[in-house]
Amino acid sequence: MKKPPPLDPQVRGPSDHDVRTQIVEAATEHFSHFGYEKTTVSDLAKAIGFSKAYIYKFFGSKQAIGEVICSDCLSTIMKAVGEAISTAPTASERLRQMFRALVKAGGELFFHDRKLYDIAAAAASGPWPSVCAYENHVKQLVAQIIVEGRNSGEFERKTPLDETANAIYLVMRPYVDPLLLQHNLDLAAEATAQLSSLILRSLAP
Amino acid sequence: MKKPPPLDPQVRGPSDHDVRTQIVEAATEHFSHFGYEKTTVSDLAKAIGFSKAYIYKFFGSKQAIGEVICSDCLSTIMKAVGEAISTAPTASERLRQMFRALVKAGGELFFHDRKLYDIAAAAASGPWPSVCAYENHVKQLVAQIIVEGRNSGEFERKTPLDETANAIYLVMRPYVDPLLLQHNLDLAAEATAQLSSLILRSLAP
Repeated sequence: MKKPPPLDPQVRGPSDHDVRTQIVEAATEHFSHFGYEKTTVSDLAKAIGFSKAYIYKFFGSKQAIGEVICSDCLSTIMKAVGEAISTAPTASERLRQMFRALVKAGGELFFHDRKLYDIAAAAASGPWPSVCAYENHVKQLVAQIIVEGRNSGEFERKTPLDETANAIYLVMRPYVDPLLLQHNLDLAAEATAQLSSLILRSLAP
Repeated sequence: MKKPPPLDPQVRGPSDHDVRTQIVEAATEHFSHFGYEKTTVSDLAKAIGFSKAYIYKFFGSKQAIGEVICSDCLSTIMKAVGEAISTAPTASERLRQMFRALVKAGGELFFHDRKLYDIAAAAASGPWPSVCAYENHVKQLVAQIIVEGRNSGEFERKTPLDETANAIYLVMRPYVDPLLLQHNLDLAAEATAQLSSLILRSLAP
């Protein structure tokens, strides 16, 4: 088993954390050139200069590496969304900004590098745990904004909260799910604005 | 050029209409076995027993044959939708029935025979004229139901009609466009119900 050189003479070997990061970075680079589907763990091992067994010590499968990359991408989107809504003064405006930021950040991340997109496609059609967590996060964010809008009197309170939140998530879903967004990018900006207005009309007290 | 046998001894050859129908039927059969993308006009000619030149006399390209098949499928969907809404007593109910029937008929037609689905996929990603006409028909039907609901006092009248109709179409689109429906079939039935309710809340006066 070929071991990576120690990064610091004081330390006998790199920490597990460093090796994981090194593998993920090399894999991202490799996937972005050759695509996720077409790359095997053997290819990755060869490219990084590690043995296959050494990579398997840190990741149980290729998907486990893809999961970390995917999860990082989705965290970046959620961070952009968090920033976009942080300064919006009302629940209505937060909902609009949220939708807009989701589509903008999602489009940039997944479609800037077409080869990395097949990780997103594999993740979404799985769906992988990282995608489920992302979807849940988006749903929770929707529910939270609705509660805020109900409390401030901006939104109606008759419809059960779960139903309202889920239906709004369904309206957003074609622009949130990376597998669907690819078919919707052309009209995403205009659609986002019109759908936000429709959602807000549906929430009127 | 091999000519088809006359269908009736009194008639020298089959009418153009008959030949067109014969080609479309044979093509449908052939596509459903071998897929649309993988079939060439030469394959079709061989399968039907016509020369390639004879087929080209009736259809300018493989897409032109696919267009007729696609157009027939879409007409069947629109007929099912027309029947579903014809007995609904209110505009609200017509909107619900329309959405439900679109998803039901679309799912049945396009996914009953997976091989024929690649015609739908090619048609939707083109998009072909038949698909544009179908989308326009759906949009017009939405607008018509909204006008009826505004006239009967069921729906609000403040939002410009175009904006309302287009936004509602956008909500329905992931379940109407065959390219998107394939990713949405699992949750289509539940989604249709929840989205109809959201749409109706957005239309409340």
